[in-house]
Amino acid sequence: MGRIRLDDISTRAPKDLEKETTKEKTKQILSKLDELQNLLYAESKHAILVIIQGLDASGKDGVIRNVFTSMNPQGITVKSFKTPTTQELSHDFLWRVHEAAPARGMIQVFNRSQYEDILITRVHKWIDNETAKKRMNAINDFERLLHEHNNTQILKFYLHVSPEEQQERLQERIHDPKKQWKYNENDFAEAKLWDDYRKAYEDCFEYCGDIPWTIVPADQNWYKEYVIASTLLDTLQKLNMQYPGLKKEG
Amino acid sequence: MGRIRLDDISTRAPKDLEKETTKEKTKQILSKLDELQNLLYAESKHAILVIIQGLDASGKDGVIRNVFTSMNPQGITVKSFKTPTTQELSHDFLWRVHEAAPARGMIQVFNRSQYEDILITRVHKWIDNETAKKRMNAINDFERLLHEHNNTQILKFYLHVSPEEQQERLQERIHDPKKQWKYNENDFAEAKLWDDYRKAYEDCFEYCGDIPWTIVPADQNWYKEYVIASTLLDTLQKLNMQYPGLKKEG
Repeated sequence: MGRIRLDDISTRAPKDLEKETTKEKTKQILSKLDELQNLLYAESKHAILVIIQGLDASGKDGVIRNVFTSMNPQGITVKSFKTPTTQELSHDFLWRVHEAAPARGMIQVFNRSQYEDILITRVHKWIDNETAKKRMNAINDFERLLHEHNNTQILKFYLHVSPEEQQERLQERIHDPKKQWKYNENDFAEAKLWDDYRKAYEDCFEYCGDIPWTIVPADQNWYKEYVIASTLLDTLQKLNMQYPGLKKEG
Repeated sequence: MGRIRLDDISTRAPKDLEKETTKEKTKQILSKLDELQNLLYAESKHAILVIIQGLDASGKDGVIRNVFTSMNPQGITVKSFKTPTTQELSHDFLWRVHEAAPARGMIQVFNRSQYEDILITRVHKWIDNETAKKRMNAINDFERLLHEHNNTQILKFYLHVSPEEQQERLQERIHDPKKQWKYNENDFAEAKLWDDYRKAYEDCFEYCGDIPWTIVPADQNWYKEYVIASTLLDTLQKLNMQYPGLKKEG
């Protein structure tokens, strides 16, 4: 498989896909997911880690709200990775990430993730390429650890928006009173680094692709939600989970 | 380097080493360690992880008390790994270990460690050889992560006692009122698995030796303490640490 080039991938749903039909499908998927999550929790053999990455205003918060809200919060937790604290910075970059890794039986959603440590840090040249390469290897080792030693299924989603859609959403943050709280004065400066971010993401797909990424066309919310929900459904169904029967006395 | 065979390694100090002179040397080393630990803490560029492994009654608790007591507890912590809790067991085996990894500036002592997951578990055949091999690889990845991404110096000590010395110490646990709290009715059963433990340890040295082990002849406390203290001194001195000067205003 060659290098994924984001320029070659559409940010919109396939033309022949009908919005209302797809939304209906997503609804049905979400109801199946609710049941499967209960089974995951009951069986407690597997863990699910859902990584949501994407540029500012690519819709990470929205997709988390819309896809995962219908599930039992006892079995699902969301961890948002912000700027590391002083304590976190005095450890290796995966220390805080490992702590937040899911227990068996749980779905853990990462809003941003270990990948920020080879994205924003590279774009702003806080780390050199050699360090980035070492971090990529460490991330691969780490994901293999979770997968091999805790039956963790890792789903990695990149929310792929167009520059035009991103600009529009950033403008909304200024004008919509319900969205102003999200506005950060750096947003527009970061958006100018679009090309650098895209390259850094393409490196993630290339060098941290042992567990593959799903590139999610993300200009339309209804399609983005459908892709993520159906990928998750597919993953859970393949686990062939069973409700444990009555516990037997030793 | 061939396989380390514990049978070929003495459990006692070299014949020509004089006990009282060595104890005096250890005292001097400990006072240097106190100063170097302060420097480690002030500089906060490196972390130190000291792993103490050994069979029951090999003297892990004693050596921790005698070597590390003289240091400022603000810069040193000891983590004893016991039987994993239900919560810990629902994660990969390195989850609880990573959480306890040292921040830069700190010395962390592990009383037992990640190696128990390829020792007691193998001797009792709770895991097969394939799982053991995978865990060894994961341990190597993990130790490389700490070393490369947090400047962690890892010192691995195996306290090497003779079967005769071990038996004597286990008997003491029954008869000495000050030691009875340490007695566990499994102690003698475990001691019978001596050969299996020795083989499992030799596998640790062979397959998890990227960061090398120090085999510490441990029948005599004074010598064991000297070896550990002087290895630690040597490690700290090689770091070429400097007190940071006054902080400059940005």
